[in-house]
Amino acid sequence: MTTAPVLPPEVSRADFEQALGELRGVVGPAWVFHEETRLLGYQDHFAILEQSLRAPSAAVAPAGVEEIQRVLAIARNRRIPLWVVSTGRNLAYGAAAPRKSGCIVLDLKRMNRILEVNEKHAYAVVEPGVSYFDLYNHLQKIGSKLWIDCAAPGWGGVMGNLMDRGVGYTPYGEHFMWQCGMQVVLADGTVVETGMGGQPGSAAAHTYRYGRGPWVDGMFTQANFGIATRLGVQLMPEPPGYRPYLVTFPEEDDVGQVTDILRPLKLNLLIPNAAVTVELNLEASVAVSRAQYFSGEGPLPDSVRRKIMADLNVGMWNFYGALYGPERVMDNNWKVIEESFAQVKGARFFFEKDRAGEPAFGYRAKLMRGIPNMTEFGILNWMPNGAHVGFSPMAAVDGRTALAQYHLARDLAHKYGFDYTGEYIVGWRDMHHVFVIFYSRDNADQKKRVYELMNAMIDDAAARGYGEYRTHLDFMDRIAGTYNWNDGALMRVNQRIKDALDPLGILAPGKSGIWPAALRGTRQP
Amino acid sequence: MTTAPVLPPEVSRADFEQALGELRGVVGPAWVFHEETRLLGYQDHFAILEQSLRAPSAAVAPAGVEEIQRVLAIARNRRIPLWVVSTGRNLAYGAAAPRKSGCIVLDLKRMNRILEVNEKHAYAVVEPGVSYFDLYNHLQKIGSKLWIDCAAPGWGGVMGNLMDRGVGYTPYGEHFMWQCGMQVVLADGTVVETGMGGQPGSAAAHTYRYGRGPWVDGMFTQANFGIATRLGVQLMPEPPGYRPYLVTFPEEDDVGQVTDILRPLKLNLLIPNAAVTVELNLEASVAVSRAQYFSGEGPLPDSVRRKIMADLNVGMWNFYGALYGPERVMDNNWKVIEESFAQVKGARFFFEKDRAGEPAFGYRAKLMRGIPNMTEFGILNWMPNGAHVGFSPMAAVDGRTALAQYHLARDLAHKYGFDYTGEYIVGWRDMHHVFVIFYSRDNADQKKRVYELMNAMIDDAAARGYGEYRTHLDFMDRIAGTYNWNDGALMRVNQRIKDALDPLGILAPGKSGIWPAALRGTRQP
Repeated sequence: MTTAPVLPPEVSRADFEQALGELRGVVGPAWVFHEETRLLGYQDHFAILEQSLRAPSAAVAPAGVEEIQRVLAIARNRRIPLWVVSTGRNLAYGAAAPRKSGCIVLDLKRMNRILEVNEKHAYAVVEPGVSYFDLYNHLQKIGSKLWIDCAAPGWGGVMGNLMDRGVGYTPYGEHFMWQCGMQVVLADGTVVETGMGGQPGSAAAHTYRYGRGPWVDGMFTQANFGIATRLGVQLMPEPPGYRPYLVTFPEEDDVGQVTDILRPLKLNLLIPNAAVTVELNLEASVAVSRAQYFSGEGPLPDSVRRKIMADLNVGMWNFYGALYGPERVMDNNWKVIEESFAQVKGARFFFEKDRAGEPAFGYRAKLMRGIPNMTEFGILNWMPNGAHVGFSPMAAVDGRTALAQYHLARDLAHKYGFDYTGEYIVGWRDMHHVFVIFYSRDNADQKKRVYELMNAMIDDAAARGYGEYRTHLDFMDRIAGTYNWNDGALMRVNQRIKDALDPLGILAPGKSGIWPAALRGTRQP
Repeated sequence: MTTAPVLPPEVSRADFEQALGELRGVVGPAWVFHEETRLLGYQDHFAILEQSLRAPSAAVAPAGVEEIQRVLAIARNRRIPLWVVSTGRNLAYGAAAPRKSGCIVLDLKRMNRILEVNEKHAYAVVEPGVSYFDLYNHLQKIGSKLWIDCAAPGWGGVMGNLMDRGVGYTPYGEHFMWQCGMQVVLADGTVVETGMGGQPGSAAAHTYRYGRGPWVDGMFTQANFGIATRLGVQLMPEPPGYRPYLVTFPEEDDVGQVTDILRPLKLNLLIPNAAVTVELNLEASVAVSRAQYFSGEGPLPDSVRRKIMADLNVGMWNFYGALYGPERVMDNNWKVIEESFAQVKGARFFFEKDRAGEPAFGYRAKLMRGIPNMTEFGILNWMPNGAHVGFSPMAAVDGRTALAQYHLARDLAHKYGFDYTGEYIVGWRDMHHVFVIFYSRDNADQKKRVYELMNAMIDDAAARGYGEYRTHLDFMDRIAGTYNWNDGALMRVNQRIKDALDPLGILAPGKSGIWPAALRGTRQP
């Protein structure tokens, strides 16, 4: 076993070894990782830049809050920054790798208890290590009638995704909206219960989220101000009926009209779930591989895309939604939905029976009722040795915007030699546009082009008022830089909070572009 | 005209006069108030303690952000604390009076522009001075199909209520849930746009609330970390149908069963709006006066309450809800609702036609579709020279809890010689219990007892895990003190943010129990 060559910034090898010894004393030798092979799991598997830029010096996995407090004491004492991950499995955004090389990864995977399932009030209380699979399986086991809302890959963490403000596909798709009650450990070791939980023995800790006084929970999301160690998440009661459906549209530019039709249906909750408009390549990628259709360089030619469309009996855009409720409410809503989408020339309508056995419909039908699965990982077979990174600008639910963002992403992707592969997820008034760039892990030229493409898209999008809601490690600073209204006033608020709550800057330096005071002003690699 | 006798803390009369001169230079002489008569509007009209404890030294009304920045510069320079109010009309919680005597009230009433109404995406952007009446009338004038959600008194401020996390009665009743995009001026004058607005020219500033990085908006609610000067508020599209209804229940303890029946109806959105279960006295108070029925001391005897119930054809508890949507969805939902509540012995059902001309039904029917009105102010005629203060613990939507809170409040109220007068507002999983104590403004003995009753209720409630979500100035510290998990860890977070964002402590000292560093540790009168 070779010790990892990376050290924490400004820490000597000898001091580092001592720190590892202290950490072993806290969590036990089995839960401190520093051999190169053991640290592979903390790499950015799909790294675009050099992996050495995002290399941890070690990882430590505490069993609970008290061990976290002791790990923090060591980190403060030795000024070793910690990069905190829950399950660390969001491969499109950097997985478990730290933004800054040399951080020790604080891996919360061992804290994987489901502390409560409250059937009556429809919520659960979970620790960071609980995956969607864990929670779903537990609910099945106890015969619960509660649904979860999961991200597309079911191995993701309930808490990690929520704290990163991720989305799913049921009516509870905006994950952060359903958080209620949070436990946070600050850099100095102080344990904080937020909301009603601030009152000992509260009877409403997980049924009313705002508590009394400033509501700070949002401040801890996508942030590095504390370590969230537990949270309440509200769950959807099983409705009396469920009918997933698919509407396909034949033309690339249909996404504009589809989005405009969607807006009032969403605003009025005729479509209650976080529904998706999926572009052809993404739709196809779970069923076939790119190589089956095309072996050339550059983006798929239109003729090939038409062929895929015909073979799979899908559209250039594919809208997945679902009806929930009693039969007559579903009948009522479907009538309006069908009439609305029928305005698009060539729209075709499918229910579950029409798409039996098809993987795309199958996993979408699962996602819209909160059954975690890994089907979407089929996209990794779209290209050999496939990797991907997400570009995720927000949009209003507006046809012109949807079309403009699609054109922007597609045209730039083509210019850099990539396909457009993406979807629009409509929550309520918001639309998450997720463009996933596929590239080959072992192709340096492609990776160089991905990096350039991402930067170009970030800048072009910002110039038009489209901001990303979330990003991969490599682009945190650049995207933060586009949120620069009034000379970055919002970032300056974040920095002041950072300095107040973590004056030594030991928690996740660089997360969301927020650096400790000592590292500000110079560009971090 | 007599100059107000109160000075800002540790400021001499001469310095104060100079400060007033500077303020006049900023906002114009007409918008600086310091004569005793002109300051009457900034009193706590329903003061329980001595009014001198909550007396402003002056008030200043800026016309916009730039004037606010200049006022802040004066306040910082002279260390004069500012108490910030939007419309300052929440009479139950202290109106426009400052928590600490001597503050200058920063009155934002002149900033009363409706900056945008977006019919397509269903939101408005308002300034602090915009009342519910203002917004509603504007929407009517422009022929908008959007509904607002208003607090019971229509003169209240859209922004002030939302920033205080108040509630209304439509499906958009949890006001803060619908906030999207905030502009805040910090104590140092920095103007911050939150959420997507942090990006210049954002196309999603008022359609996606969370933006990128830490979401700080919640932190500015019920807080004194900055001055909110503008916000986006999402509005409900007019549904295709609306049917308000009333269900009456004959017995005091029915509130338990009613609440348990309500829970699944709310969780499953068969009752989509923030519906209320109103106790007899509150229900009666908009139609009749207490003196018509009883002239004795102490709480209303049961026989009198039965008489009022019969005369007004109402219940001991009265549930107001509404159906929204297409006819057949409303029909479907009503069937379930009726069957459910019919389980309560003696339940009776009424629609609008059954209660024509009755003020209680009339104003509830308006509130549940967002038509502001002042009918509930009839409660001020319940007692001669009537005043009231609110006690507002949160509860889970649970019969045992509802009953326990009712018994606790009622029994303590009776012990101190007052009626129980209240309602439960059920949002989704949360229940706001609002108990309004009525007393006479000119009765010192009653006021003394109100104060003791409030303190007893706060402590008794806390001992059982019931915390208040909002309160009158006089009880902010005591209630903050009940949120003392881990030695007040949450308050310590608030204090660190306060020190970071307002190191001189000039913004609203004491708001929500958060004091500037210099005033901590000693009990403030």
